Amino acid sequence: MDRRCIAIFDSGLGGLTVVRAIQQRLPADDLVYFGDTARVPYGSKSKETVTRFAREICDFLLRFDPKLIVFACNTASAAALPSLRPHISVPTVGVVMPGARAAVERAGNGTIAVIATESTINSDAYRTAMRSLNPQVRVIQKPCPLFVPLAEEGRSADDPIVRAVVQDYLQPLVALGPQAMVLGCTHYPILREAIAAACGPTVELIDSAEQTAQQVYADLAATNGLRTEDRRGKLTCYVSDNPQRFRELGQRFLQQSIVDVTWVAPERFHADEARPVS
Amino acid sequence: MDRRCIAIFDSGLGGLTVVRAIQQRLPADDLVYFGDTARVPYGSKSKETVTRFAREICDFLLRFDPKLIVFACNTASAAALPSLRPHISVPTVGVVMPGARAAVERAGNGTIAVIATESTINSDAYRTAMRSLNPQVRVIQKPCPLFVPLAEEGRSADDPIVRAVVQDYLQPLVALGPQAMVLGCTHYPILREAIAAACGPTVELIDSAEQTAQQVYADLAATNGLRTEDRRGKLTCYVSDNPQRFRELGQRFLQQSIVDVTWVAPERFHADEARPVS
Repeated sequence: MDRRCIAIFDSGLGGLTVVRAIQQRLPADDLVYFGDTARVPYGSKSKETVTRFAREICDFLLRFDPKLIVFACNTASAAALPSLRPHISVPTVGVVMPGARAAVERAGNGTIAVIATESTINSDAYRTAMRSLNPQVRVIQKPCPLFVPLAEEGRSADDPIVRAVVQDYLQPLVALGPQAMVLGCTHYPILREAIAAACGPTVELIDSAEQTAQQVYADLAATNGLRTEDRRGKLTCYVSDNPQRFRELGQRFLQQSIVDVTWVAPERFHADEARPVS
Repeated sequence: MDRRCIAIFDSGLGGLTVVRAIQQRLPADDLVYFGDTARVPYGSKSKETVTRFAREICDFLLRFDPKLIVFACNTASAAALPSLRPHISVPTVGVVMPGARAAVERAGNGTIAVIATESTINSDAYRTAMRSLNPQVRVIQKPCPLFVPLAEEGRSADDPIVRAVVQDYLQPLVALGPQAMVLGCTHYPILREAIAAACGPTVELIDSAEQTAQQVYADLAATNGLRTEDRRGKLTCYVSDNPQRFRELGQRFLQQSIVDVTWVAPERFHADEARPVS
């Protein structure tokens, strides 16, 4: 058993859908979450910039002496994780590979649609991961830049504007008859119902939050890191801007109230200051 | 005559609508533009964070020995300019007061609608400015968070989704019968045609870009700072991320091609390094 915390980060709020899935799968673990709300969103930014941000955040999270760091952000997982992994002193889990694996299992030799941010699509990380698992699979991809602001604005799946935007983006993908569609951004599960309506019953939706929680469980089980006591773990949140806004909007993503949110100065992320807090 | 450049900044691309208006009004002047594309958008971020970003950018722009700095970003003008102005060694012009003045002139003792980002609305800067000019004026305000991503995505004013979102946001404002509506975000002129259609012919739209260019002209004229030679000034652009994306999307805002874009590291903005480049 390993009683150290699990550290999780995202560009903002979306990663809370991963937190929720991890809480359900690993209820005894303490979680430390960081949302980079001063620099959100990452989805339209370059690989170099996203990698720099992710590196700073990992340095900050290492202060909490975590047993694992989860990149709960598709953009950071796609653009930054492969190059950062060798430099981080604890194991890491991203959201791309778990989602890719689940989709390949579902689709067989068929077609998989990936919807994600511009940066994630440009990185080609999902297609690369899927092809490494099954070279026969056909992958179609589309950036959906309005989904994040729609989800952040708090519109529900039955809002007519949400329906219209979802239809507009997905219709050309659905026309190609995919067997599975990966929700390749942690914000998208908020719009799941509208996406499912546009896809119809033949397309299986893959939510990387759930797949990622399963991966975290499997990785910890393999190294005797599971925490098995009968307790409810604590969630501690840090943000780089606007704790009050995070608390209010975050409830929608976490589906429970958020109590403990602290603002931290980006200056604290510098690599040369990184050390465990304990 | 003052041959020094005019420095202009925005959180990203939107300030290029102000650049365009300044080019038309002051064609002989050299312009230096900075877009904070690594940290865009500012509209949902706190006053403290936006003020810190604006301070760093002004320190960077002072290296070019400008005769004036234009805050071509409504959020920075509203949230940061009042507190920063005393600490900046050259005159500054924001976009809020010029737009407020034009609206008050048009509306008389009637009603003015302001549409802007969440941060700008929360700062109450437009209402404060308008009330200082005419205490009788009635101001109604609404944040329109989807307008920026719609404009950045390159959708045109006749796109059905643009029409639907514009209608959804503006209908409750238009129902109150305003005489004027301030486009209180430099991205919004891109959607001007759709906004005008939703408002009908009785609402005068106030574009702060044009008003700001007039203010820059007036301020320079008052201090013998106008550059009157028969020449075409040069535009030099700096961004904190993704020069190629800025070049591509920026053309839409500037309505001309953008040649000279340089990426600069945020580390260079530190106050203690600020000095003229010449």
